[in-house]
Amino acid sequence: MTTKVKIAIIGSTGYGGVELIRLLASHPLAEITSVISSSSAGTPITEGYPHLTAIREELLDDVVPADIKAKADVVFLATPAGVAGKLVPQLLEVGLKIIDLSGDFRLKSPGLYEQWYKKPAAEPVYLEQAVFGLSEIYGEKVADQGFISNPGCYPTATLLGLAPAVKAGWIDPATIIIDAKSGVSGAGRGASLGTHYSELNENFKAYKLNQHQHIPEIEMVLSDLASEPVVVTFSTHLVPMTRGIMSTMYAKINGERSLEEFVELYRSFYEGRSFVRVRPGGQLPATKEVWGSNYCDIGFAVDKRTGRITIVSVIDNLVKGAAGQAIQNLNLMMGWDETLGLQFVPAYP
Amino acid sequence: MTTKVKIAIIGSTGYGGVELIRLLASHPLAEITSVISSSSAGTPITEGYPHLTAIREELLDDVVPADIKAKADVVFLATPAGVAGKLVPQLLEVGLKIIDLSGDFRLKSPGLYEQWYKKPAAEPVYLEQAVFGLSEIYGEKVADQGFISNPGCYPTATLLGLAPAVKAGWIDPATIIIDAKSGVSGAGRGASLGTHYSELNENFKAYKLNQHQHIPEIEMVLSDLASEPVVVTFSTHLVPMTRGIMSTMYAKINGERSLEEFVELYRSFYEGRSFVRVRPGGQLPATKEVWGSNYCDIGFAVDKRTGRITIVSVIDNLVKGAAGQAIQNLNLMMGWDETLGLQFVPAYP
Amino acid sequence: MTTKVKIAIIGSTGYGGVELIRLLASHPLAEITSVISSSSAGTPITEGYPHLTAIREELLDDVVPADIKAKADVVFLATPAGVAGKLVPQLLEVGLKIIDLSGDFRLKSPGLYEQWYKKPAAEPVYLEQAVFGLSEIYGEKVADQGFISNPGCYPTATLLGLAPAVKAGWIDPATIIIDAKSGVSGAGRGASLGTHYSELNENFKAYKLNQHQHIPEIEMVLSDLASEPVVVTFSTHLVPMTRGIMSTMYAKINGERSLEEFVELYRSFYEGRSFVRVRPGGQLPATKEVWGSNYCDIGFAVDKRTGRITIVSVIDNLVKGAAGQAIQNLNLMMGWDETLGLQFVPAYP
Amino acid sequence: MTTKVKIAIIGSTGYGGVELIRLLASHPLAEITSVISSSSAGTPITEGYPHLTAIREELLDDVVPADIKAKADVVFLATPAGVAGKLVPQLLEVGLKIIDLSGDFRLKSPGLYEQWYKKPAAEPVYLEQAVFGLSEIYGEKVADQGFISNPGCYPTATLLGLAPAVKAGWIDPATIIIDAKSGVSGAGRGASLGTHYSELNENFKAYKLNQHQHIPEIEMVLSDLASEPVVVTFSTHLVPMTRGIMSTMYAKINGERSLEEFVELYRSFYEGRSFVRVRPGGQLPATKEVWGSNYCDIGFAVDKRTGRITIVSVIDNLVKGAAGQAIQNLNLMMGWDETLGLQFVPAYP
Repeated sequence: MTTKVKIAIIGSTGYGGVELIRLLASHPLAEITSVISSSSAGTPITEGYPHLTAIREELLDDVVPADIKAKADVVFLATPAGVAGKLVPQLLEVGLKIIDLSGDFRLKSPGLYEQWYKKPAAEPVYLEQAVFGLSEIYGEKVADQGFISNPGCYPTATLLGLAPAVKAGWIDPATIIIDAKSGVSGAGRGASLGTHYSELNENFKAYKLNQHQHIPEIEMVLSDLASEPVVVTFSTHLVPMTRGIMSTMYAKINGERSLEEFVELYRSFYEGRSFVRVRPGGQLPATKEVWGSNYCDIGFAVDKRTGRITIVSVIDNLVKGAAGQAIQNLNLMMGWDETLGLQFVPAYP
Repeated sequence: MTTKVKIAIIGSTGYGGVELIRLLASHPLAEITSVISSSSAGTPITEGYPHLTAIREELLDDVVPADIKAKADVVFLATPAGVAGKLVPQLLEVGLKIIDLSGDFRLKSPGLYEQWYKKPAAEPVYLEQAVFGLSEIYGEKVADQGFISNPGCYPTATLLGLAPAVKAGWIDPATIIIDAKSGVSGAGRGASLGTHYSELNENFKAYKLNQHQHIPEIEMVLSDLASEPVVVTFSTHLVPMTRGIMSTMYAKINGERSLEEFVELYRSFYEGRSFVRVRPGGQLPATKEVWGSNYCDIGFAVDKRTGRITIVSVIDNLVKGAAGQAIQNLNLMMGWDETLGLQFVPAYP
Repeated sequence: MTTKVKIAIIGSTGYGGVELIRLLASHPLAEITSVISSSSAGTPITEGYPHLTAIREELLDDVVPADIKAKADVVFLATPAGVAGKLVPQLLEVGLKIIDLSGDFRLKSPGLYEQWYKKPAAEPVYLEQAVFGLSEIYGEKVADQGFISNPGCYPTATLLGLAPAVKAGWIDPATIIIDAKSGVSGAGRGASLGTHYSELNENFKAYKLNQHQHIPEIEMVLSDLASEPVVVTFSTHLVPMTRGIMSTMYAKINGERSLEEFVELYRSFYEGRSFVRVRPGGQLPATKEVWGSNYCDIGFAVDKRTGRITIVSVIDNLVKGAAGQAIQNLNLMMGWDETLGLQFVPAYP
Repeated sequence: MTTKVKIAIIGSTGYGGVELIRLLASHPLAEITSVISSSSAGTPITEGYPHLTAIREELLDDVVPADIKAKADVVFLATPAGVAGKLVPQLLEVGLKIIDLSGDFRLKSPGLYEQWYKKPAAEPVYLEQAVFGLSEIYGEKVADQGFISNPGCYPTATLLGLAPAVKAGWIDPATIIIDAKSGVSGAGRGASLGTHYSELNENFKAYKLNQHQHIPEIEMVLSDLASEPVVVTFSTHLVPMTRGIMSTMYAKINGERSLEEFVELYRSFYEGRSFVRVRPGGQLPATKEVWGSNYCDIGFAVDKRTGRITIVSVIDNLVKGAAGQAIQNLNLMMGWDETLGLQFVPAYP
């Protein structure tokens, strides 16, 4: 009989946390042994989430590193910005493996973090230690590591959509423009006028143009892939739906490249990585076609009139953009097949 | 040249208040001279409502009765429960005419108010003074009055749907069951988990079964129409949409009555009242068919197998269920045609 | 190594069929070996459903009983009314086990079928043979059977909500009123004005009052449980959402019964049946709390003022109301645990 | 007493036609005297649109130019592409003034029309005669004209957002990228899988990248404003909402220009045109803030890191993008104030 890896989740009452609970429920080699919430410790998780009735009836634990270590092998942090930065040193100290879903350890530069997040950065020694877990690009670095920083939702959709073309030098990085759109769950469960139903229903909004904290994360990876500093124009919009991100990306093509060549380039780049589905022949993916699943689907339009390519990339922000990719990182970290427990068919319609 | 009646709105930053602003903008004989908000006084109303840019650019006034009287003839109160109860005496004192959109003066019995609203009632002398402005039923009582209590949204849809049949004795009041559904704007603009987009989108919820504070208001009018005490079963549900109420109502038919007879009875009852549209031949109204307008549309199904009638009544909760009916009451109070400034075609689709 | 039971799906391009594909993808003891569509035979299923890219890439088969038998052990029919009635005899003939998701074999009386469905009924000999698979009520009858008729979506939510009280005689069957609401996917994938986005978004509609073809199915089971003929008032409404059914049900309580007694009665009735979750203490379930899962959640309000109980029952119409319950019937038919491959956590939010 | 201008509407059963009915209902100097539909002639308009009950009860007329002329002075065509091209010569012949909401007369070049619309173009003599009625840019050309071609929805939002900057030479036309998003009503009332509720709800889709027939219309005007040929990258997306268009536009700034300078430039360009509201200080408009109104709201973000400006422009596609702008053109054609009958406050929320 298999002994399952024991999992604790800090931030279990947020949308990232509760999605980890949904996905891990069917993982063959991992089991949740502690659901943790500093704000709701001592109350049943079903109080805030009645959909978990008869599934998880236990009380929420408090954040006590030694207690977590007593119950778990790996801890997922699904906490707001600024929390993991403080908690991680204590969790490493007691010997836990860590997968952090927040933005606290994605940027290696404390200055960049403080500039974009408007908060104090984590200590450099820990920033260095964290491995950036964009699975399809840096997956091999994750194996056997004990501390993974899980990418942001917008960067995941965007970088998977740009990486092959930038890496191959087929597009001009200086011309990249990213027009991203997200469902509302990306804003978390906190109640505010900005997440109020009557304000968002039948409404489409732009926000944080060129100011989103995911920009330096995108530029960090693109610069790495292009081997030169890349600066992008990045816009974010709120779509009246719960889940889903689409990143529509524009760039000048270097030389002449056909749609078919791009499809071929991407298929070759992502060969063996089952969660990226490159669409053929100008077929464009819609967000619903990945809803509830760990897929990132990518399609293209090549415009001869302007010499530009348009790349469309979609994910479920709570799965491939958060909990799903975190489990993919767990799988890679453990040396398992990266698809373990993640082969959900998208829920359609 | 006509001198317009001057209007002040207390609670201008709520959905009821801002809908009054929208509707009154095209009223031929009334004009808004003061938009008031105790919480946001001194700031421009466009700060919270950028859709009013270039339409109303003034600063919000504070609630000072003498100042209101200096600027206005009539004051609309679109405030949360408990506020009007305290303000009205001061506003009457300075000589203002009042139309109160809240529930504070609808029930004549302080005990009933306190039982259902869980708040201290207004003083009986003022409760007595307020005229209950369900226009199509008590409209003639409103003429020349100075203090109108505007009905609730659920009671408006429900009572207009039941009144003719109850008054005529065609249905048995003891068997009335009301299954009501509302869009989310009925919950107001306050941010809470209960109004969070991601919690309500793609979700249908029941709430406050048999406990809604609109129940005694409905029973008060039905008892009056039936000339006997009426007690109802009343359920409320939240629909993932912004505006609209449907009340689906069930009752035993006294004797045998056909669908056509009910249509005839209702048409006769509402003759000359242009905001009630009785649908013929089993045609059932949908909420979108009254969206943005002051109409209440009513349809029927008569079931010979069970001897029951099902009555379907729809309104826009912010118009006929709040601001529109309040303006209709203004028109009646002033002796004008009740449709003045209210002949909006529903926005479809 | 386990040999999996081989499954064919007729009607794979409808919403019921494609949900079977989603759910069966993770079933440990069954595998789909043929996806069938008479209208799209010969084309890849991904053409109409790109979300299945890289998951199911095969071409759709045509409806040829001998070919189906060559590929499969069990066939699911997810076809429009009138189709299964003709196909089933041929499928039984070649020795296939059958689970029919349509309404063709639910009613034992051909006359009743023709009255409500306005179509010719299947032959009586086959109507007799079909076992009505409302799992929690008739589950034991399903074991070892070869031909199951899967219940309708509205009847499933409604009957699970009423059965314990009717069976126990705690409510008066003559007073039952059912106000049901459904997401749009219940209407299928056919394009019409009635399923057009702009017509349904921000809209709440009533339809087919007392005329829905699910009424005789509900009355058939209630009459069986009550051991007397039961006739109900049944209303259906369309909610602007994709998935989910809520049935709000009203009845007179026989004698005096508390909320707690009803909770106890229902828990006892459904003991050991893990897909029914009876909510405690007046907690009311919302449709989103079962989204994507096979649960049916039930809550109550008991009103002393009127002597009535209000019962709220929710399901995902495509899962417990169709594909999920069909798989539950497969499990029972095969003698497996009824939860096999169905333990999905609801997708929330 | 004023004699009103008499209006006929061809295509009254489409969304553009029915929105003309809604808006014209409150126009002080125009009245509808004939609602026309070739497909539904002879039936009451309320059959397809019950929301018009008691508002417009007449039967739909057929398309007979002489009959139209007998009833009306001005005819609006709200017909699918290809219809107006054939009808207009006959309507001009009988002496009607024409406002065409379709795309048939927007492009002066028949070849360009046939390339993008995949249909035969109207005769050149009529193409020449039509005045392109983008009110805020070509408004003065409309005065006293008898045949106006009303702009498309995407071009209206896009061109109003780009015109001042292109005209002033502040941005480089060769770098313009337009990422546009629309609510579903833009696709019309025709039922198809592409407008099916369950397919679009909780979904965000890209479509027709670089292939939308509005592209040559946008390029025609930009080329005129820039006095040089302009070619753009243009993407369209479908948003799960009914009404609203947002155009997010990107371009390189020529030289250095601050956000405040752009605001000033645009305010100066649109001075006296009350339907364009230029937002100050980086405030970004949302589609709901113009819902149901004739406004076009524009906001900016200037990014020093990339030297690019992002321009956000929103309209209600059925009002400023269709029926509202058509009435604005009627007003200009008649020499009236362009705001006549159009001063609707946006419906919020």
